[in-house]
Amino acid sequence: MSRFWSDHIHELVPYVPGEQPKQQLLKLNTNEHAYGPSPRVFAAIAAKNNDDLRLYPPYEASALLSAIAKKHNVATDQVFLGNGSDEVLAHVFNTLFLREGRPLLLPDITYSFYKTYCAFFKVPAEVIPLAEDFTIRVEDYTREREVAPAAIIFANPNAPTGIALALDDIAHIAQANPDSAVVVDEAYVDFGADSAVALIAQHPNIVVIHTLSKSYALAGLRVGYAVASAEIVAGLQRVKDSFNSYPLDTLAQAGAVAAIEDQAYFDEKRFAIMQSRDKLTKDLQQLGFEVLPSKTNFVFARHADHEAQQLHQGLRDRHILVRHFQQPRIEQFLRITVGTPEQCAKLIAALREILNA
Amino acid sequence: MSRFWSDHIHELVPYVPGEQPKQQLLKLNTNEHAYGPSPRVFAAIAAKNNDDLRLYPPYEASALLSAIAKKHNVATDQVFLGNGSDEVLAHVFNTLFLREGRPLLLPDITYSFYKTYCAFFKVPAEVIPLAEDFTIRVEDYTREREVAPAAIIFANPNAPTGIALALDDIAHIAQANPDSAVVVDEAYVDFGADSAVALIAQHPNIVVIHTLSKSYALAGLRVGYAVASAEIVAGLQRVKDSFNSYPLDTLAQAGAVAAIEDQAYFDEKRFAIMQSRDKLTKDLQQLGFEVLPSKTNFVFARHADHEAQQLHQGLRDRHILVRHFQQPRIEQFLRITVGTPEQCAKLIAALREILNA
Repeated sequence: MSRFWSDHIHELVPYVPGEQPKQQLLKLNTNEHAYGPSPRVFAAIAAKNNDDLRLYPPYEASALLSAIAKKHNVATDQVFLGNGSDEVLAHVFNTLFLREGRPLLLPDITYSFYKTYCAFFKVPAEVIPLAEDFTIRVEDYTREREVAPAAIIFANPNAPTGIALALDDIAHIAQANPDSAVVVDEAYVDFGADSAVALIAQHPNIVVIHTLSKSYALAGLRVGYAVASAEIVAGLQRVKDSFNSYPLDTLAQAGAVAAIEDQAYFDEKRFAIMQSRDKLTKDLQQLGFEVLPSKTNFVFARHADHEAQQLHQGLRDRHILVRHFQQPRIEQFLRITVGTPEQCAKLIAALREILNA
Repeated sequence: MSRFWSDHIHELVPYVPGEQPKQQLLKLNTNEHAYGPSPRVFAAIAAKNNDDLRLYPPYEASALLSAIAKKHNVATDQVFLGNGSDEVLAHVFNTLFLREGRPLLLPDITYSFYKTYCAFFKVPAEVIPLAEDFTIRVEDYTREREVAPAAIIFANPNAPTGIALALDDIAHIAQANPDSAVVVDEAYVDFGADSAVALIAQHPNIVVIHTLSKSYALAGLRVGYAVASAEIVAGLQRVKDSFNSYPLDTLAQAGAVAAIEDQAYFDEKRFAIMQSRDKLTKDLQQLGFEVLPSKTNFVFARHADHEAQQLHQGLRDRHILVRHFQQPRIEQFLRITVGTPEQCAKLIAALREILNA
């Protein structure tokens, strides 16, 4: 506390990211990519020179906009860049969710930063429980309401459940809410789900958020983006330019372009991770875990006979870090990043030891 | 305009940064460093590997915090990091300037992003004109008021005037406003002014903002920071963690540490730039310009007989870009970045040609 703080800071509760341990642990807690980025990324960075550091970054980031627009087959003015998808999300909350008297709809279990943003930007939220099986109930978002929501947001695949909603369902939600922004956070989409970018031409209220931290293995570079109508992107740009003109540094821009352009590497590694995920799911099931059907690079699993907290601690004692959320409905689950086959085997061996202890 | 925008976006007027030209121009318009960063910066970046890109950046950025704390002889919990000093400033506005019924005081002529932030965060501003000679009149900020200001902000040296306020004056302002944050934006301080960091121990209401874009020549990397009391930094951290957990990527952190640690290079180059500035000032005066006394890496100059707009265009026709602000009181000035001796000579030759035409 400080007497110099703004009034609203005193009540503010920030988001807490997954632990970044200083000791050597097998890190399966923040869904980093098992293999790392394309070697072309570092080559592109090393090709920069002192003058690139001396000068401000390319303000329009044209090369990166073009690479993203080409990947998604949209126009460059439909792409909005940010310092990681968290910054993009923050600007989305500010740009689209503050419409007098109209709430934001979001699931009770989803990326927990959304609730932090609601408190931070004073967005009125209507929290809608997921179904018993942790899926999003489409009818909760399509039924008639007295007041149209300002917007709807969810992650797809959802986090930390890993469960994906079909594109038809997303189209249905967008159609039923023509005056509301429908924001689909696709941080994990490349691991087996379909992107709602394909729906934007038909449904101009859809906003899709992507990150290069997961499927492109660039968590260390901080690059995220939104794809939406040019009108919506213009609003985001206006907010960004009232906040920070140059959020993406020159090296991050260059590395991101190189990553996106190496489609072969991208596909090879994401398919390898999907394969590991499916094997990990079966191995966990054999150990007695219930595993939600994942379309991401993590699995969300609980054991009928063992407390998640104890499993979490048992793994940590064995130098393996997974994520445990102390949150109603999911407090018995562990969220486990899909590592390499060797890392998955190590995890399974550790769990077997704990379960048999 | 879009019907999906939040209410407040419709009126929002963003900041406009200096042009980043695509053609080959001599860029003396955004105060980039004439020489570029220490060679150690690129070496530190090249020493990183794919795993550094794959993993999230060090959340606490301990190495960078330590380097900055050591440089300024403060504790690490007195340092707040951001994605360029613009992001730091944005968080400062949000964290410290929103106190019910209390205004922010700022000069009429200063870094123009401050006014954008006031509109963006809805900070009530009381704009105080600089004196006739473009200095800050200390008594305007120390006189008794019915309502104590929430805060005071100015750049020191001021921009775009280049004029520095003495530390005694800043201490006096801080002393006269013990319940107000006094934010001193020292983007250019290393080119000849004294840092108010030395005052923080005595005046815990002082907040000092620094950037690595100017004197460390790292505009391309986006690193800025604040130094303040631990209490104030805790508030900034709370806001940052409600907005974006990882604003500084791994390479930017590594490059910034290397830059700060190469004190010999830093000093050699900033002294060279100060020397060039003093020669440039004399050369401009000989051409009939009035040049404000600069403690920065730019000069702010006007000519009694020539319109700034025409000089600006004349230079552009000769492939030299300088900055011209269409703003009352300073519309006859040009802001000219101090380049290398060769670049300064080129500028002077071009101006001589224009004035004699």
